[in-house]
Amino acid sequence: MIRRPIGVFDSGVGGLTVVKELIRQLPSEDIVYFGDTARVPYGIKSKETVIRFSIENILFLLKHDVKLICVACNTVSSLALPVIKHHFKVPIIGVINPGVREAVYATQNKRIGVIGTKGTIKSRAYEIEIKHLDPSIKVTAVACPLFVPFAEEGWLSGDVVAKVAKTYLKPLKDARVDTVILGCTHYPLLKPVIQKVLGSNVALIDSAKQVAIEVKKILGVENSLNKGRSGKHQFYVSDNPDWFSGLAESFLGKPLNNVRRVQNV
Amino acid sequence: MIRRPIGVFDSGVGGLTVVKELIRQLPSEDIVYFGDTARVPYGIKSKETVIRFSIENILFLLKHDVKLICVACNTVSSLALPVIKHHFKVPIIGVINPGVREAVYATQNKRIGVIGTKGTIKSRAYEIEIKHLDPSIKVTAVACPLFVPFAEEGWLSGDVVAKVAKTYLKPLKDARVDTVILGCTHYPLLKPVIQKVLGSNVALIDSAKQVAIEVKKILGVENSLNKGRSGKHQFYVSDNPDWFSGLAESFLGKPLNNVRRVQNV
Repeated sequence: MIRRPIGVFDSGVGGLTVVKELIRQLPSEDIVYFGDTARVPYGIKSKETVIRFSIENILFLLKHDVKLICVACNTVSSLALPVIKHHFKVPIIGVINPGVREAVYATQNKRIGVIGTKGTIKSRAYEIEIKHLDPSIKVTAVACPLFVPFAEEGWLSGDVVAKVAKTYLKPLKDARVDTVILGCTHYPLLKPVIQKVLGSNVALIDSAKQVAIEVKKILGVENSLNKGRSGKHQFYVSDNPDWFSGLAESFLGKPLNNVRRVQNV
Repeated sequence: MIRRPIGVFDSGVGGLTVVKELIRQLPSEDIVYFGDTARVPYGIKSKETVIRFSIENILFLLKHDVKLICVACNTVSSLALPVIKHHFKVPIIGVINPGVREAVYATQNKRIGVIGTKGTIKSRAYEIEIKHLDPSIKVTAVACPLFVPFAEEGWLSGDVVAKVAKTYLKPLKDARVDTVILGCTHYPLLKPVIQKVLGSNVALIDSAKQVAIEVKKILGVENSLNKGRSGKHQFYVSDNPDWFSGLAESFLGKPLNNVRRVQNV
């Protein structure tokens, strides 16, 4: 049997939180990761532009003969995926549905909060998907645009980020949500401060785990799961491999060498 | 005499602080502005990528038959300008030299501070230029990567930004600089908090004014200054005209309509 890799892409480094979970759940799979660090971030950009960039990223991964593509970016999953998933033969998995399923399962009081980039929140993708599964759930969604720069600059705790978190998360506290979807792959790094502000009885949903479960399920159905030896993992970026490598450890849980720079357009 | 416009470009919206000063000092000039909002920010990106993007932006402005190009972006001026200014016939003015000249003139104790993006600081462009004019000056340069997101999100005052500013600016206070170059076109928005942290006896140098003086001088020498009626100002972006228009007022001092979206690549 030919071993084909799983493709994963993100605007930058955040998608490594998904790779971490894929490696944990599917240790035999080969992975090709692409981070579009020349054009990062996507969160403030328009739907048309995010679609254009995403198609270019997918075409790059297809050159590596990937058997499945995992969109490890909430902005792309919200804005571009509904349009582009029909263009390609390869199965493309986003991060919205897996996160929503877990949140709908977790909530007791039927009040779910969603936090993400401006693009993600404006798209209302989470809200629409939650309502689709259970129309009686009340959704409160807020954009937290400073969380990504804080995560990338390593300001993960302390007064400053606590105060910003308090300001952003006030509408979720006011709405008395019992479950919050971390709708951006950077946010798991800020979990401690978010949990502290919201209180320990609020469940924080990080979709990476559910994404890996879904990937496993699809590859199982298609009978294309790898067996045996540990997978090979390749990492490509469109710019600044050093910046990417420097941040990788906090997202992936281990340091990364041999990040290769390519031009995807 | 044919009226040819001045071209101005920046990675995003920050360059409008330079446009504001050009309009003030050269009210008869036509201006074509391009903000590369599809790929903003440039400050964390590599020299090669910033050079590639800058050349594409210049080619866009040349289609508008500009008589001079003003690089209203410190990252581009630091990383790309030394390489690309020799490629083109049109005069290209950056923001480094004008700011340096004013700072060297202003300092009394020969200790100058420089703040900017990671790219700008890593390039050492300011330091090299200051030392070129006066080797006896001591330069302390620090990157302040969170200042751009704060400026764009409108967090211009209050505890949070004060605390971040205090952390970033400590090396400048320790070095007892009497003059600080605001080496990023976003930073003038944060002038009050920066001044408060550094103290009122520290001179803050914002290069926009000096840039406009230099443009005026060059056009004067080339006998291509416009006279008479007020200039026409056109604004183009590669993405999200609404985001750009929304921020424009804080940088330009007046609201902007008719921002047009174009694809520069």
